[in-house]
Amino acid sequence: MAETLRLKSPADFIGKQGNGVISFGSGQPDLPPPKEAFEGLDLRKDLRYGLIQGELKLREALALEYPGSTADHFVITNGASEALDLIFRGWGKGEKVLLPRPYYYSYPPIIELAGMVPVYTDLIDGRIDIEDFRKKVQGCRAVLINSPSNPTGRVEDIATLKEIEKITAKLGVYVVSDEVYKDLIYERENYHIQGDHVITVNSFSKTYAMCGVRVGYLWSADKSIVENVCEMKTHTSMNTNLVGQDMALSAMRAPKEYIRQQQQIWRERRDFIYKGFCDLGFELWRPEGAFYILPKCKNAREFLTVLYQDYKVITYLGEWFGAPGHLRLSYALDVKMIEEGLNRIQMAMKKVQVL
Amino acid sequence: MAETLRLKSPADFIGKQGNGVISFGSGQPDLPPPKEAFEGLDLRKDLRYGLIQGELKLREALALEYPGSTADHFVITNGASEALDLIFRGWGKGEKVLLPRPYYYSYPPIIELAGMVPVYTDLIDGRIDIEDFRKKVQGCRAVLINSPSNPTGRVEDIATLKEIEKITAKLGVYVVSDEVYKDLIYERENYHIQGDHVITVNSFSKTYAMCGVRVGYLWSADKSIVENVCEMKTHTSMNTNLVGQDMALSAMRAPKEYIRQQQQIWRERRDFIYKGFCDLGFELWRPEGAFYILPKCKNAREFLTVLYQDYKVITYLGEWFGAPGHLRLSYALDVKMIEEGLNRIQMAMKKVQVL
Repeated sequence: MAETLRLKSPADFIGKQGNGVISFGSGQPDLPPPKEAFEGLDLRKDLRYGLIQGELKLREALALEYPGSTADHFVITNGASEALDLIFRGWGKGEKVLLPRPYYYSYPPIIELAGMVPVYTDLIDGRIDIEDFRKKVQGCRAVLINSPSNPTGRVEDIATLKEIEKITAKLGVYVVSDEVYKDLIYERENYHIQGDHVITVNSFSKTYAMCGVRVGYLWSADKSIVENVCEMKTHTSMNTNLVGQDMALSAMRAPKEYIRQQQQIWRERRDFIYKGFCDLGFELWRPEGAFYILPKCKNAREFLTVLYQDYKVITYLGEWFGAPGHLRLSYALDVKMIEEGLNRIQMAMKKVQVL
Repeated sequence: MAETLRLKSPADFIGKQGNGVISFGSGQPDLPPPKEAFEGLDLRKDLRYGLIQGELKLREALALEYPGSTADHFVITNGASEALDLIFRGWGKGEKVLLPRPYYYSYPPIIELAGMVPVYTDLIDGRIDIEDFRKKVQGCRAVLINSPSNPTGRVEDIATLKEIEKITAKLGVYVVSDEVYKDLIYERENYHIQGDHVITVNSFSKTYAMCGVRVGYLWSADKSIVENVCEMKTHTSMNTNLVGQDMALSAMRAPKEYIRQQQQIWRERRDFIYKGFCDLGFELWRPEGAFYILPKCKNAREFLTVLYQDYKVITYLGEWFGAPGHLRLSYALDVKMIEEGLNRIQMAMKKVQVL
């Protein structure tokens, strides 16, 4: 057998698709953006700097989706990534940020790049353990939550989210709520966690299948957060690209039916991959949102290597997401591809003991 | 007279144009982008993530402009701003960066946000004092130079640039060379400062009048710099927006004649505003590149206030650029507007003693 791959992060797989490769790696929709993203688009000919905070029309359109909000509560950013980066950079060096584990793989580096220190609360059965949360949140400047979650596919209970709201409000701890999968919930509506101490991070990437356009945003009722982020952004990237903002505004004209249709496709895939992995004998959580599964897997790195080298199947290591002993798979693939992937996984299971 | 404005930075003037205001503030071309930026543009319908490093075709096109380079030497960023931000974030906290003063107003905050410490070498007559440079550069991790310069309008002598190359190479100090005005030199061709210890920062914003699209890049022959920037960018913003990159590639199809024609317009404006300010009695340097003047001005804040409140003329304080006792003006305006602005300035000079 070939030597076990020394991959260090998902970035090692970028650009490795095509040529019969089936990738369960990529965290982005494979479906096309809504036609409205292009149809309504009137490409501006004046390409001078825009407002650092983001185009007013786009922020006004967003305010309609956040009850009680105005355009002033939003900053348009280069994807959710930049929103997170600037939020944490605005806080003090050495301060603590509480992070449920497993986590999205960029969270610890973003927090550390800002000079802050991640501390962890381990999920129980894929959900926040509110008693551990209550202990660990003491002395933190902020918590970062992600529901629906990449990589767990779990959606936190509304009762838990409300309890988090309450605990943090009492302690004066900020809640950074990354809700980029808010329109990809199979079980119920999103609960939008609220309060003056809440900073919501969101994006057009997943809802409208336009990851490469890099338009995200943050929402905050705390004026000092908005101003501080804009001040930093003036120096670190200026306005978010104007053409992308135009496309985002156009995409928002897509009917609600577009989002429902997308959800139907995702639900079908979810059911298919979940059953497939159960049938193969894996232990895993049934996804309630987003498009990820995180099955338990012995010898995960060896299995990943065999899958990639012998069967052209890309998977990610759970350990990149703080979940050693697991594999993390995205099901942003059509059902036929998922089926073929499952067949290959079944064959690879004869070579590596994974259960 | 009204109270003197307590403006703190150029950002306080953003969005204050229109309604008969003449703005000498804004550091961006008022001219339109070349028609090629739109004509050749085939808006992609697949908007999935692109390469973090930037689209290969765009980097290949850039490599043709940098002799001896390949696409691997470039990272496409959200404007020159993000390139600078990521470069400095890659270095050690507390390390020193040498900065000629006056400087572009975002430089100190970018360096400080990265946890580094700016140290200054004062320009003499708008040019780097190589003896002071030689002393101050000792113990620095990097120097940041900007020729042609915002706010001085000066272009460093080729002999000086070569001496900087040599001194820094010997000491193992990086040179970050911000050349966003490289195509806006009135006197001679740009000298592209070179070496494995050089990181060039550039942009499509000024050359092609597309600031709002936010496409810039860095060039480095040092693989570790390129890799480190890409690693950080994976977490902090992902790929630079794909539509903007398409527009940048399209814009590069504009003939060299486009750039020459632009230069002709800028030269005419330069001559007009320089003569105008000399005739009014101001002491200032004749711009050799970019589109800024930095006249000496007594009671600068008071004069700025009168100009803005009584004459609807926006100027920037030299102190925002490390040049107290000066005003900084951009001449990204057509000659008729510059003329009207000069008339208003002449009137305002009757109210405030500036010479």
